Amino acid sequence: MKLVVAVIQDKDSGKLLEALVEDGFKATKLASTGGFLKAGNTTVLIGVEDNKTQQVVKLIKKICKAREKTVTTMSPIGGAVESYVPYPVEIVVGGATIFVLDVDQFERV
Amino acid sequence: MKLVVAVIQDKDSGKLLEALVEDGFKATKLASTGGFLKAGNTTVLIGVEDNKTQQVVKLIKKICKAREKTVTTMSPIGGAVESYVPYPVEIVVGGATIFVLDVDQFERV
Amino acid sequence: MKLVVAVIQDKDSGKLLEALVEDGFKATKLASTGGFLKAGNTTVLIGVEDNKTQQVVKLIKKICKAREKTVTTMSPIGGAVESYVPYPVEIVVGGATIFVLDVDQFERV
Ligand code: NI
Ligand code: NI
Ligand code: NI
Repeated sequence: MKLVVAVIQDKDSGKLLEALVEDGFKATKLASTGGFLKAGNTTVLIGVEDNKTQQVVKLIKKICKAREKTVTTMSPIGGAVESYVPYPVEIVVGGATIFVLDVDQFERV
Repeated sequence: MKLVVAVIQDKDSGKLLEALVEDGFKATKLASTGGFLKAGNTTVLIGVEDNKTQQVVKLIKKICKAREKTVTTMSPIGGAVESYVPYPVEIVVGGATIFVLDVDQFERV
Repeated sequence: MKLVVAVIQDKDSGKLLEALVEDGFKATKLASTGGFLKAGNTTVLIGVEDNKTQQVVKLIKKICKAREKTVTTMSPIGGAVESYVPYPVEIVVGGATIFVLDVDQFERV
């Protein structure tokens, strides 16, 4: 048995939990931090049999991988601070940090 | 040293933490998830000396084990949706998922 | 790779996270418990390369170690419950419980 500890973005957590359930895995979502360091992050715990560990890791990577997203922002033009034009900017969203821990003993009751 | 990670129902957490303290164990309760998957769950971390691990596991199993509980619900009678009768239903409450992890190094300061 | 799980006091968490970032470590703060047992505590997860584990452990010990703090409290004098005098009392603040776990597999995506 392994315990997968995954730190992911809040916005990816719904999709990940749904995908895990569909594939028959059980996950527990810890309340997100609210901390300045990783605001908007969620930690997910997934207990998994050894031979299915890579399936879970791949699923997390697929759903949560860091990707570019285009958002529209505003920028002032020239010296006139009152004049703004909308323009697209690419930002990075998502990302996951995954720790796989070995489990000495596993019990469900 | 072992780290016991137990996912239990919120409603069992008070009783479990009290029992752990009485037996001389130290536990930390992580904020419950609020997630759709395991709403109402709490994750408890318990650091324990190797030779007392089974004592902790048994305590969790005893207090948090899934059990049937009779609740009274209402059901409509026949075709008249306005007529309801109360009747008892058995639901399952409690339950625990327990992971025992080996600890490389333990420090208290 | 190691996963350091540190249970510390809320009031030390800002300073610890700042120090960890300065030294190039990545940490995740789990929401504090709210539980009666360890009210005011925060659990911090830190992924660290094996050879830097002691650096992280030392940093936590330095910043979070239990220490005495003098606070001023009030005490009634003699029989007249209306008469109070302020006097200094030493209380213990801080403290940390640190678990270092071995990581089977580590992925960042
Ligand atoms: Ni195993
Ligand atoms: Ni050990
Ligand atoms: Ni390692």
